[in-house]
This record gives sequence, C-alpha cells and structure tokens, in this order.
Amino acid sequence: MSKILFPGSFDPPTLGHTDLIRRAAALFDEVVVAVLVNIHKAGRFTIPERVRMLEACCKDIHNVRVMSYEGLLVDLAGRENVGAVLRGARSAADFDYERSMAAVNGMLCPGLETIMFLCSPGLEGVSSSTVRELLEWGRPVKGFVPDEIIPLLG
Amino acid sequence: MSKILFPGSFDPPTLGHTDLIRRAAALFDEVVVAVLVNIHKAGRFTIPERVRMLEACCKDIHNVRVMSYEGLLVDLAGRENVGAVLRGARSAADFDYERSMAAVNGMLCPGLETIMFLCSPGLEGVSSSTVRELLEWGRPVKGFVPDEIIPLLG
Amino acid sequence: MSKILFPGSFDPPTLGHTDLIRRAAALFDEVVVAVLVNIHKAGRFTIPERVRMLEACCKDIHNVRVMSYEGLLVDLAGRENVGAVLRGARSAADFDYERSMAAVNGMLCPGLETIMFLCSPGLEGVSSSTVRELLEWGRPVKGFVPDEIIPLLG
Amino acid sequence: MSKILFPGSFDPPTLGHTDLIRRAAALFDEVVVAVLVNIHKAGRFTIPERVRMLEACCKDIHNVRVMSYEGLLVDLAGRENVGAVLRGARSAADFDYERSMAAVNGMLCPGLETIMFLCSPGLEGVSSSTVRELLEWGRPVKGFVPDEIIPLLG
Amino acid sequence: MSKILFPGSFDPPTLGHTDLIRRAAALFDEVVVAVLVNIHKAGRFTIPERVRMLEACCKDIHNVRVMSYEGLLVDLAGRENVGAVLRGARSAADFDYERSMAAVNGMLCPGLETIMFLCSPGLEGVSSSTVRELLEWGRPVKGFVPDEIIPLLG
Amino acid sequence: MSKILFPGSFDPPTLGHTDLIRRAAALFDEVVVAVLVNIHKAGRFTIPERVRMLEACCKDIHNVRVMSYEGLLVDLAGRENVGAVLRGARSAADFDYERSMAAVNGMLCPGLETIMFLCSPGLEGVSSSTVRELLEWGRPVKGFVPDEIIPLLG
Repeated sequence: MSKILFPGSFDPPTLGHTDLIRRAAALFDEVVVAVLVNIHKAGRFTIPERVRMLEACCKDIHNVRVMSYEGLLVDLAGRENVGAVLRGARSAADFDYERSMAAVNGMLCPGLETIMFLCSPGLEGVSSSTVRELLEWGRPVKGFVPDEIIPLLG
Repeated sequence: MSKILFPGSFDPPTLGHTDLIRRAAALFDEVVVAVLVNIHKAGRFTIPERVRMLEACCKDIHNVRVMSYEGLLVDLAGRENVGAVLRGARSAADFDYERSMAAVNGMLCPGLETIMFLCSPGLEGVSSSTVRELLEWGRPVKGFVPDEIIPLLG
Repeated sequence: MSKILFPGSFDPPTLGHTDLIRRAAALFDEVVVAVLVNIHKAGRFTIPERVRMLEACCKDIHNVRVMSYEGLLVDLAGRENVGAVLRGARSAADFDYERSMAAVNGMLCPGLETIMFLCSPGLEGVSSSTVRELLEWGRPVKGFVPDEIIPLLG
Repeated sequence: MSKILFPGSFDPPTLGHTDLIRRAAALFDEVVVAVLVNIHKAGRFTIPERVRMLEACCKDIHNVRVMSYEGLLVDLAGRENVGAVLRGARSAADFDYERSMAAVNGMLCPGLETIMFLCSPGLEGVSSSTVRELLEWGRPVKGFVPDEIIPLLG
Repeated sequence: MSKILFPGSFDPPTLGHTDLIRRAAALFDEVVVAVLVNIHKAGRFTIPERVRMLEACCKDIHNVRVMSYEGLLVDLAGRENVGAVLRGARSAADFDYERSMAAVNGMLCPGLETIMFLCSPGLEGVSSSTVRELLEWGRPVKGFVPDEIIPLLG
Repeated sequence: MSKILFPGSFDPPTLGHTDLIRRAAALFDEVVVAVLVNIHKAGRFTIPERVRMLEACCKDIHNVRVMSYEGLLVDLAGRENVGAVLRGARSAADFDYERSMAAVNGMLCPGLETIMFLCSPGLEGVSSSTVRELLEWGRPVKGFVPDEIIPLLG
C-alpha cells in the first residue's frame, strides 16, 4: 500500500494545499496530512484549529487522515511507516529550498522519498501568509481558502 | 494617461531606487512612489523621513509624486487609479519572489499590471540593507545613496 | 509619446504573444510588433505569413503596428525611435536569458530600456514551439493561438 | 491501481534513469518506461536497442514495462490510461523546463499529473549526453550506466 | 603568496565547512577562517566555542588560521591583506545570494575577489541550522559535523 | 605551486574572458588557457587563430600559457597536472550548468576542483556569440573584445 505524508504549517490551510491533497489522494492509497507544531513560533491559528480546518476541507476525500506532530519529520515518517513525503513547488526558488530539505531527510532516513507536485495554474498567488495578511486587513479570502473553512477563520 | 506605482520600504532610498524612478519617469506620464508603512517593523528611518528623502532625490523630476500608504498595495492602486506596479529585479531569485507577489495582486485586482525593470549594471550591490549596515559601522555611503540625501541620513 | 517595441519570431503568434501585446497597448501610446527575419533558420511560416497573422490578431487594437526587421534589434530601435523593448518572462530561467540580452542591448544602445511583463496565469504552457508540434501531429490548436489565425495556419 | 509513465530518450539509459525507475516502482503499482521516437533526430542508439537496454536494466523489477512511442506524450498517456508522468529534476534550471512541459501537458490533457523526483546524491553528473561523449572518446562508462547494459553499448 | 578568507557564522562548524576549508587549503597558500561576531543575534554557541571547534577540526591542516571578527568583511580583508574571499554554493538560489554579496564587497573594496566553490556531492543536506535542529531534538549529529567537534557540542 | 586551467571555445576571446584570466593570474601561480577543439562544429575562427588572439591579449601577463586541446577536459587536466578548473558564471542559469559539468568532472577525476568566478559588473552582456553577431552585421566590437585582437578579427 502506498502512503504519502504531506507536512506543513497550514496556518491556515489554503486552496493550494487542498488542491495538492486532492491530487495526491487520487494517486496514492493514503495521504497523511501532518501539521507541524513549531515550538518557537505561535502562528495565527492554534494547532487544533488548523487540524479541524483541514478535516473540514478533506471530509469528502476518504483516504486522507489529518494529524499534528512535533519534532523531526523523519521520526514521524518512521512512526507512520510512510515511504514518501509530498511537497508542492511553485518556482525555481521553491525547488532549491525543497531540494535541500530533501537532502537532509535523505541523510537522516535513507530511502525516504521526496515527491514534488507543481502548483496548479491560477494558484501561484495563494499562500497562508497572503491569507493571514488579507485577514489582518479585513478583506474577504474567498478564492484563497476552501469555502468550508471560511466560517472557521473567525 | 499612463501612471505607474512604485511601492517599497525605502529605508532609506538608494541609488538603485532613484535609478528605477528616473527610468520609469522617462516612459510613463506619472510615477507614484509609495512608502509602505509596516505596522510590525519600525525600520531605521521614520516614514516622514523616508518621504522627505525621496522628495529630495526626485525634486528635479517633474512627473514623480511621493506618498506613504498603509494596508494592501491593491487598495492603494485602486485609490490612485493606477494600472501598473513597477518592481526592480536583480536576479532570478528576485524574479521568482516578484512573480509570486504579482500573482497575489493579479488575484486581488484583476488587470493590475506588474512591470519589471532590470537593475542597471553597477548597481547590483546597492540595497537599503547594505546602506543601513554601512551606517551602523560609520562608513561613508557615497555611491550607494543619492548625494541629496546624505545630509539627511543623520 | 511612449512607444514600445515587441520583437520576436512569432512562428506562429500565440495567445501568449497577443496577451502581452494587449497589455502593453493598454499602458503605452504605441506598440511596434517586430518579426525578426532570421537569415540562418527558415521557420515553419514565412515572414509575410507571420506579419499577416499578427495583423489579423491585432486588428482591433488601434495603437499596434506590425512590421518585420533584419539585423540588430538596437538598429531597429534607433530607426523607430523607441525608448523601450518589451519582453515576456515565464520563469527564472527566462529571466536570466532576458537579462543577458538586455545587457547586450544596453551596451549597444545606452538608454534603451528593457521592460519585462510576466506571463499571465494559464498561459505558461503556450509557446510557438508547442503550437508547431501540435500542428505537426495534426492536433487542434484552439486555446494556444488566437481564433483569428486558426484559418491562416493552413 | 496507480500507474506512472516515465518518458524519455534513453540514448542510452543511465544509472540516473534506473535509479528513478527503481524508486518509482517502489511507490507505484506499475511504471511504464516509454522511449520517445524522435523523427527529427537519429540518436546514437536505435529505438529497439534502447528498449532492449532498458529491459535488461529492469528485468529484476517486476512492475516495470518498457515500450516506445511516437507522437505526443498526452496521446500515449491516454492510450495507456495513466494518471501521472514521472520526471527527474537535478537543478532549478531543470525544474523551470519541466514546469513548462507540465503546463503544456496539463492544457492538452487536464488531470494528467506531473510528478518530480529529485536526482539522488552522487548522480548529478550522470546523463546520456555525458555517456555518449565518454563512448566517443573510448572511455569506460562504468559508474554512469547500469552494469547490465555495458556489453550492449557496442 | 595567495591567501584566502573564509568568513561565516560556523554555529557550529559542519562537515560542509571543513570540506571547503580542506579544498581551499590545497589550492591556496593560506586560508583564514573568520567567525563573524553578529552583535544582533546570540547564536547557539559562543564565539570562543566556535573558534575552538574550528581549530579542533583544522589542527592537521598546517596552512589554516582561525580567528573571529566584528564589523565589515572588507575591513577584515584589508587588515589581513587578503585578495580573495571564499564562499560555498549549493544551489542557484545560493549563487544569486552570493552574487549580491560579492557586488557589495566589490564596491566597498575594488579588487577583492569572491571565489565560489561548489558543495561536494553528498553534503547538500549539511548545514549549521540542520545540526542545531538535530541537537535540539537530541539526535546524533555524526555525518553532519567533523568527529573532532562532537565532544565539544555539549 | 597552484595551477589553474581555464577551458573554453574562445570563438573569439572577449573582454569577459581576459577579465577572468587577469583575475585568475593574480591569485594562482599559473593559468593555462585551453581552447577546446570541437570536432563537430567549425566555429567562426580557426583554432590557431583563437590561440593567437589569446596570446595577443595575454602577452603582458607573465604567468599565462595558451594551448589547444581535443578530447575530455579531465584528460587535459591530468596531462597538465592541474588541480583546479576555472569557470565564469553570470547568472543562476550559468551556475546550474556549471554545477552539472563540475559533477561530471568530479566523477571522472576525483579531486579535480571547479572554481567559479563571478562576471565583473558591466561585462554581463559580453559573450563570444554577441561578438560574432556584431561582426556578422559589420558593427564595431570595441568594448566587447580586447583592443589587441580587433586587428585580428579580419
């Protein structure tokens, strides 16, 4: 059974994230979406809020599971017994960053695969930081986040 | 009438900025230079100081107007009724960053154009952060900022 | 009066090209679209065919003029008395290429500006070489080229 | 059942190719390796030779099938009923190229996924063109191609 | 006599750093490794600790000298009378960053050369920030730092 | 004694090439400039012409030697007993290309170092292909090539 891990901050989840999750769920038997607990940075939404939002977005995709984790990604990959990590890339700059992360993970956990999906056309401008900025200035975020989570953004 | 918006922090303005302003002023009917008020970061110079410095640098260019703004760039573009935003790019890394900003602005304000000018040869090393570092170590900044603002750097 | 030059091979013109022309025509007083005569490479369409296709695509934009040229771009810029060259960029790789071209043109004709427009979302996959490949395999090219030129593609 | 298509020239196959095939075969139910027949370029090895080499390299991987194809990749993807295309990327420059190819394929065949695998450490210098150059100068190619195909390189 | 300066934070030194130092020491008469005192950021290890670690790693390379410095790199280069600065680059993104630093240094100190070495294969995932993260989670760092400094990491 | 190899086509040599040679000659004991004989491509100037031009440009630099070579760079490096290869890079795209070449050379000749110098400001637009295009259109090439070789360009 092929299982893939999609780690991130998801502060909050965006249409870019759910697009990647949906595409991965069509190719792999199970997608584990994992919210990283960053002990050094608070974020705008709490970890349980982010998990709840992701669950709301993914409730119609049967092979997605949402969880949170603390510590190193490779330890989570070991506990969950996944063979591959999913990352999205929008640009050459993203690629170079992801490549260095993949090199670290490959050293710590030989055989752990990193798979890159390209950002879908029309979603290049969608990111959690943009959503947070829009919220800060009281602007609507429709078109940036899934409709399901708009009521949860408070 | 073609009007272009040049947003930035300008903390402080550099020869790179004034080079872009001068080149844009030669091609467009009006250039609006807009200092972003970042409510989360103080900066080395106050917003009125930066506006004053820009006005000093541009006083001989008749079609430049300097202002400050708070909030989203697209809202300013709407208020000022401009059709295009000017950005400078020095490298492929700059390009990828500007492209993602342009994608956001295009989503929030369809039709708002982002135009990229290339950094002039010889100015690749000029940036506000370098100027701030030189000031911190008491080094002269001639060749990095326009002569007009040297007395204003305190 | 601001006039901009848009040089290229246009073998054939695509929706990416006409998107750039339309956006430039909204910002500049005149757009001169110039088909480069490459004396070393035949191309799929003749120069007069390409000019005719561009004219067909642009017939409803009043401030666009189409022409062909042989030789150096900077000589054409001098003859046409334009101050700026328009180039589209889709990626960091495109940017690096255009930057080196702009450096050449800036050396040969100091003051000639190169302005970069970003590819519109959804048009990243559109290029003349893709259109030629689709034609070679007898596939429809709707969505890749302007409707006006489809009958002219033979 | 998840099936992935790995297209390429494979002139000849290298250790980089077989590394990607092996990694893909561990994650997907079936990997279809497809040698592109380029009607405009002869190549060093014939298409049947390349197919035979790939079969020799992959004979111990049960879920790999090797074939050749002519025409558009999206047509092959349709005939083979695959949902995803596998591409390897070594650098930011590779990424930008693959992204534009993926954009074309996404336009011609909506829903066809492009998945990028990173080059394994130590294989960055391995490519078919390097192997061809080594063969031209009579140098050994051990470490560049799988041992199985060395006798087939003639 | 050719002398090269290798500046950095070295918080802590890694196998990537010592690989660069060793390679530079084979080509230049003297390598001066200089730990930057960042007055704005504490770091995980003190400056004397970092100097001691570097000395431990380099004790068998006769033409390496370790020191710390405060202020501008170009001032140190002047005091030490070096003609070149060594920088490592792992990716296109690194390159663009180093290029802008080199442009600054070239303006402040005309003639000061910046030389780039490529990261050795297999060390792409090695960085001080990764080492700090591994230490934070109590993981072994063998393979990331030179064996000599493991006892000094406390 | 530190010796560095600077390989290239030099068809013809440019100010960019001589700038790199001069900078390398200031740091290394000997610079070997090696013109690659490309058996598949004629070039505009013959190999002896290119060697003569390089000798004319470098006649005042005492530690430069010019030669031509056929075959693999690593074989030349072995025959000449050099420990490092010099390459210039103008952009992130150049860097990615050079990195893959360096990886090949590192596999074929472990320990052969590749050193990258950055293009000097103002020389980004200078390349052999630009010079050839200028010559083709009968334009002056002063500012693109060293004055010494202008009479040799015929």
